[in-house]
Amino acid sequence: MREAIREARIAKSYGEVPIGAVIVKDGEIIARGHNMREMWKDPTAHAELIAIREAARVLGGWRLTGCTLYVTLEPCPMCAGSLILSRVDNVVIGAMDAKGGAVGSVINIVEEDDFNHRPEVTTGVLAEECGIMLKEFFRELRNKRSK
Amino acid sequence: MREAIREARIAKSYGEVPIGAVIVKDGEIIARGHNMREMWKDPTAHAELIAIREAARVLGGWRLTGCTLYVTLEPCPMCAGSLILSRVDNVVIGAMDAKGGAVGSVINIVEEDDFNHRPEVTTGVLAEECGIMLKEFFRELRNKRSK
Repeated sequence: MREAIREARIAKSYGEVPIGAVIVKDGEIIARGHNMREMWKDPTAHAELIAIREAARVLGGWRLTGCTLYVTLEPCPMCAGSLILSRVDNVVIGAMDAKGGAVGSVINIVEEDDFNHRPEVTTGVLAEECGIMLKEFFRELRNKRSK
Repeated sequence: MREAIREARIAKSYGEVPIGAVIVKDGEIIARGHNMREMWKDPTAHAELIAIREAARVLGGWRLTGCTLYVTLEPCPMCAGSLILSRVDNVVIGAMDAKGGAVGSVINIVEEDDFNHRPEVTTGVLAEECGIMLKEFFRELRNKRSK
């Protein structure tokens, strides 16, 4: 999760909302991603989706079996859906997202019996550190806008 | 929807599951996509996501306000989530997906009050034609595998 936080900080350095993700297989980080929505002008450029696509490239196939995805914020519906599609084994989450989270907060996509894959979910890993980054980012944004 | 079906047929010609999407703004098709999961070895390469990313490139920004997305099959959770994130105004769906659909069949992501955008949804447009393509594809696949 420390490496996912490092990715989130890279996003912040570009003025992006600081969310980061890494994907680990056999104890090694095989892919990284950070939110790039504004820079890439792409509504799908979330940390998780970028990392998943990178991991698929690295592994040479779309199935991320045996992989664990670490992400600093609870995934949105799109990203939670991509966790099912990519068949990742485990998802480790930092802070929860009460307003938009799709892994238990607003809805729970990854623990829905009707879908054909259910990754194992762990929450609350370095949650405070992950959450503080976001709170500080939005506080600074509000301060800038009110000036 | 005829153009989305045309996209689905392109997917089929590559041996991909035949699903297609187009995005229309001001009466013109600005983006197209068809399922490319196997060819691109990318679990996120669904018709809708490809079309959304293309439309954002064409429009030069991540907000697809004023756009309508036509898709031959009810979107999965990932794609339904991307419809919220991209702020498309309208979604027009061909066939429904009882096993994996996230616009009413298994869950309904795009009509969830807690998320910050709700596109208008129309279903059942050329549904039979869209559905038959998929049924034929999977029947042929089963026949090939049983030989």
